[in-house]
Amino acid sequence: MNTRRNAQVVLRRRPSGLIAAGDTEVVSGDAPAPADGEALVRTTYVGIDAAARTWLNDQPGYLPPVQLGEVIRAAGIGEVVESRCAAYRVGDVVTTLTGFQEYVLVRDDVFTTPVPGPDVDQLAVMSVYGPTGATAYFGMTGIGRPKAGETVVVSAAAGATGSVAGQIAKIAGARVVGIAGGPRKCRAVVDDFGFDACIDYKSDTLTADLKTHCPRGVDVYFDNVGGPILDAVLGRLAHRARVVLCGVISSYLTGEHPGPANYVNLLAKTAVMQGFNALHEWDRFDEAFAALHDWEKSGQLVHRETVMEGIDSCVDALNGLFSGANIGKMLVRLSEPGSGQAARR
Amino acid sequence: MNTRRNAQVVLRRRPSGLIAAGDTEVVSGDAPAPADGEALVRTTYVGIDAAARTWLNDQPGYLPPVQLGEVIRAAGIGEVVESRCAAYRVGDVVTTLTGFQEYVLVRDDVFTTPVPGPDVDQLAVMSVYGPTGATAYFGMTGIGRPKAGETVVVSAAAGATGSVAGQIAKIAGARVVGIAGGPRKCRAVVDDFGFDACIDYKSDTLTADLKTHCPRGVDVYFDNVGGPILDAVLGRLAHRARVVLCGVISSYLTGEHPGPANYVNLLAKTAVMQGFNALHEWDRFDEAFAALHDWEKSGQLVHRETVMEGIDSCVDALNGLFSGANIGKMLVRLSEPGSGQAARR
Repeated sequence: MNTRRNAQVVLRRRPSGLIAAGDTEVVSGDAPAPADGEALVRTTYVGIDAAARTWLNDQPGYLPPVQLGEVIRAAGIGEVVESRCAAYRVGDVVTTLTGFQEYVLVRDDVFTTPVPGPDVDQLAVMSVYGPTGATAYFGMTGIGRPKAGETVVVSAAAGATGSVAGQIAKIAGARVVGIAGGPRKCRAVVDDFGFDACIDYKSDTLTADLKTHCPRGVDVYFDNVGGPILDAVLGRLAHRARVVLCGVISSYLTGEHPGPANYVNLLAKTAVMQGFNALHEWDRFDEAFAALHDWEKSGQLVHRETVMEGIDSCVDALNGLFSGANIGKMLVRLSEPGSGQAARR
Repeated sequence: MNTRRNAQVVLRRRPSGLIAAGDTEVVSGDAPAPADGEALVRTTYVGIDAAARTWLNDQPGYLPPVQLGEVIRAAGIGEVVESRCAAYRVGDVVTTLTGFQEYVLVRDDVFTTPVPGPDVDQLAVMSVYGPTGATAYFGMTGIGRPKAGETVVVSAAAGATGSVAGQIAKIAGARVVGIAGGPRKCRAVVDDFGFDACIDYKSDTLTADLKTHCPRGVDVYFDNVGGPILDAVLGRLAHRARVVLCGVISSYLTGEHPGPANYVNLLAKTAVMQGFNALHEWDRFDEAFAALHDWEKSGQLVHRETVMEGIDSCVDALNGLFSGANIGKMLVRLSEPGSGQAARR
């Protein structure tokens, strides 16, 4: 057995705002050997999600904070290169909490899921057939429940979750208005993801633009950002509106969450605002993936990725989420997909 | 037919904060004569609700603002003294938007409802078998849905809606914690209304008290107040909590609504916050009243009233809501109940 070198990004100091030099360190050592019941996975793509930044703060969340000296936590995809576990064979493609590292040990547990077939499109898995797609699906179909002719607004519409959520609303027959930052992203939201319109929140005319594009109010709002954008959309709710709370990216760097004063509109409009976490719907992921698969295969659902290269890019990619560097899912490629499959042949 | 004098409180100037001298005027004139299809009602009790204050601001709401020169709008109860309307006979007791006035014309419409039987307890109607009771019922049973053993928190717990809402949660088997202002009200919440505990928000230990009384978090919060109390309770939510938005009394005087920064806990706790208005459930009032009647008759549901006397007290009573003058439903008695019934005999 060759010795495999495993480069990892570990946390050295809790960041304040964007991750700065010295907050993290890339270290390299031997990849661990799997014990009985374990398998070793070579990471192909690590997913860059805003949630990963929240885990660097010393605050309780749905997962515990990353501790100093630990590898930065992230969901990714990879290929089994050694197995002492009945659940996985060498060459299997699995999604798991890879973290920012080139190799990770897995076992047959809730966070590790084999992906059917070695020829799977790993980019599609990261964009659609994983927590990102499931989040868009459960939030939009379970809470938003758009009906034909209703008006749906999605923030961070060019992002991984927002782009899928908006397309699901289009499939339901709704008029879908995105909110994104800058003309390039707004064009992608309309041209690539097929939204009916997209509002550039950097234009400083957000409230007026919402009125223009949502003349009968907002029936469903899928919120990824919180802050002033959430407040503005709450001010434009239609009667019996549904607000899907998916994320609060505006606060993840600082841990501060200004409260939305227009929450009182929930009362005036008999509306509802609901938080959710796709991980609580784990037992329904098959349902979500089946629906998403049908839509993707029929061409109703497209996915895009922004891919950076190599372990040294992981922190830049995560910081980049907060300056809006990505269209579609932000990923870092740590190894070439298919090398595990080749190894098995 | 005797000429009846009708004293009314009309709006002269939009108040800023509490209603001040000169904002309103008591005027007196002849009571109107009913036309065909109308009846004349002598007001017995006018209900004093915080919503009445919101209608004095020049802001759109679920009912339009009261215009300058108009009678101040309020829901009340009275007795038919003349009728040219098939729906009502002289002596009938009806609930309607009496306003702050001694006589009001009614017709057979959605805001006027005959109360079965002339011997009805009019105080009970105002506290339980009207919009107040229906609001508590629909909010607690439809949105809160407390289960046995869950922890329910109710703000403005000594007030008309809160006191009923909390008792409904007790009937469902929940542990119910009230929030009220001052030791006298807190005693009433526990001793009169049977809550398990009551937190005095004036004690400045609200957050610590919530932790003490809700060690496993808050499963249901019935919010009548908004502001810092809503924010504090949002910070204590349990997993899958339900927040019932019933009112925002903290903002009604100023029209300002500070946003609750802890709304992000809706996301962390997979919780829901929902506004409602009992008037939208008009077709289910019979169901509500039947349930409330059974509970009241079996002694599981008590009601209390704070009654002031005479047309000149109406404005003081409304202002008094904001200093917490009332335990139970705040009412002003404008005439003796039963005189209409006596007139018919």
